[in-house]
Amino acid sequence: MCGDNVSKFSRNNRISAITKILMDNPNKVINLNTFTEMLKVAKSTISEDVVMVRQTLALLEMGRVETVSGASGGIKYIVNIGQEETERFIEELCAAMSDSSRIIPGNYIYMSDIMYNPEIINKAGIILASRFIDANPDYVVTVETKGIPLAYEVAKKLGIQLVIVRRHNNNFTEGPIVTINYVSGTSGRIQNMSLPKRALKKASRCIFIDDFMKAGGTTLGIIDLLKEFESELVGIGVLVDNVDTPKKLVSKYISLVEFSGIDDGNQVKVSPAKLYKR
Amino acid sequence: MCGDNVSKFSRNNRISAITKILMDNPNKVINLNTFTEMLKVAKSTISEDVVMVRQTLALLEMGRVETVSGASGGIKYIVNIGQEETERFIEELCAAMSDSSRIIPGNYIYMSDIMYNPEIINKAGIILASRFIDANPDYVVTVETKGIPLAYEVAKKLGIQLVIVRRHNNNFTEGPIVTINYVSGTSGRIQNMSLPKRALKKASRCIFIDDFMKAGGTTLGIIDLLKEFESELVGIGVLVDNVDTPKKLVSKYISLVEFSGIDDGNQVKVSPAKLYKR
Repeated sequence: MCGDNVSKFSRNNRISAITKILMDNPNKVINLNTFTEMLKVAKSTISEDVVMVRQTLALLEMGRVETVSGASGGIKYIVNIGQEETERFIEELCAAMSDSSRIIPGNYIYMSDIMYNPEIINKAGIILASRFIDANPDYVVTVETKGIPLAYEVAKKLGIQLVIVRRHNNNFTEGPIVTINYVSGTSGRIQNMSLPKRALKKASRCIFIDDFMKAGGTTLGIIDLLKEFESELVGIGVLVDNVDTPKKLVSKYISLVEFSGIDDGNQVKVSPAKLYKR
Repeated sequence: MCGDNVSKFSRNNRISAITKILMDNPNKVINLNTFTEMLKVAKSTISEDVVMVRQTLALLEMGRVETVSGASGGIKYIVNIGQEETERFIEELCAAMSDSSRIIPGNYIYMSDIMYNPEIINKAGIILASRFIDANPDYVVTVETKGIPLAYEVAKKLGIQLVIVRRHNNNFTEGPIVTINYVSGTSGRIQNMSLPKRALKKASRCIFIDDFMKAGGTTLGIIDLLKEFESELVGIGVLVDNVDTPKKLVSKYISLVEFSGIDDGNQVKVSPAKLYKR
């Protein structure tokens, strides 16, 4: 009790501080001593504060606070958003994508503004990360360029390292690199992808995150590349799945939005992926 | 009072929720009605809660909550960290960078693990973003690839859009593109950089964020490219400044770490930038 009175932090202050620190460190175990030292109160007091934070996040469906027991234990924040907010967000995303001014010759859709919009990518990152927590990955892997912000957000929310695979092998500033060839599932062309040898520890579990899934040739390339690192792909997530592709080379992946081409009236056909349909 | 009693959210709950929502939306004005609707209490109650959140963040030097008056007013969260924590972070960064196993033939330093580490990039992003708030930029611009996560974090913390300039002009999925040539300040070679016409609105104020500043040829290229969009560069920030470069083409920029080459004993010479020296 005496310690409590000395602290300049009221319960309200402590709850705000604990919330802030949990948000800053998703999926990282934070020892309660971090809070007792920072806020100058007993561990039992911090535990009571954490109960309030946990309750708030649960009430508002803003993720959850887990307790990790043991010597290196503490609490960690797992990102999430509620089903209703997820569905509303994905519907808004579909509405934004279906704008016919996005159509590029060759039936591509301009998506860079979406892929580089932090507000959108933050939410998409939460939705994807929440699906991969249980896979317990060591790395998030992406291929340059458009999927990098999304992959970064997923890595951040999983509390792990991002790895960026390059599309060429003339990179002289990263030391020895491993290059593989893969066949684009759409064009049939042979392409390169490369990764510095030191970018990935052996026997790692990896998640592949990208902006767009067409046939899945890039994903097969990633699987081959990871084999060179004796590592394993344990999950795949993309923002947009092109379901208009006749032959998919990859079957098990998560997407938020399904794109099924452009209709005769020049309308972009997009809809929420099945998981997220109202 | 009656409204207060109906709410299922206690003051502690509300303070946790307000903190969470502010952290999720840096530099964005949030109308107090957002909170009154979500938490089912009167605006005066929310105002009292906000006072507590503001006080906590000030006490712990974790940024500040500003009040924006007027019809579209509300509160916004401005990111920051204290001087002491900034200095400690940059010293740790220097220690990590000075590891001689990072040296790549040609006197390059392997930095991808740092540039793709969300924990590091988050803090570096806070430090850089806090310096550019007053410049009131519309976009954060970067050139692919290594600076993308840092540029994304700065954009997120400034509440604005990220723009990624490509190093080639064979990009067929983004519509009409503008390509310029620039001269690498180090090698003297002529190179390309390109940006889709629709990526940037005319008359915009831009910040350029990159991983590494050598002579500054890339920055001059960005200035030229922005001119094609009738837009202006209002700030430059990099993680690492190579101060061992004889002739700098750019003078006004912010860096966190100074790199001054590799000494005879195979030691990487890095130190905190002047602003952040203890």
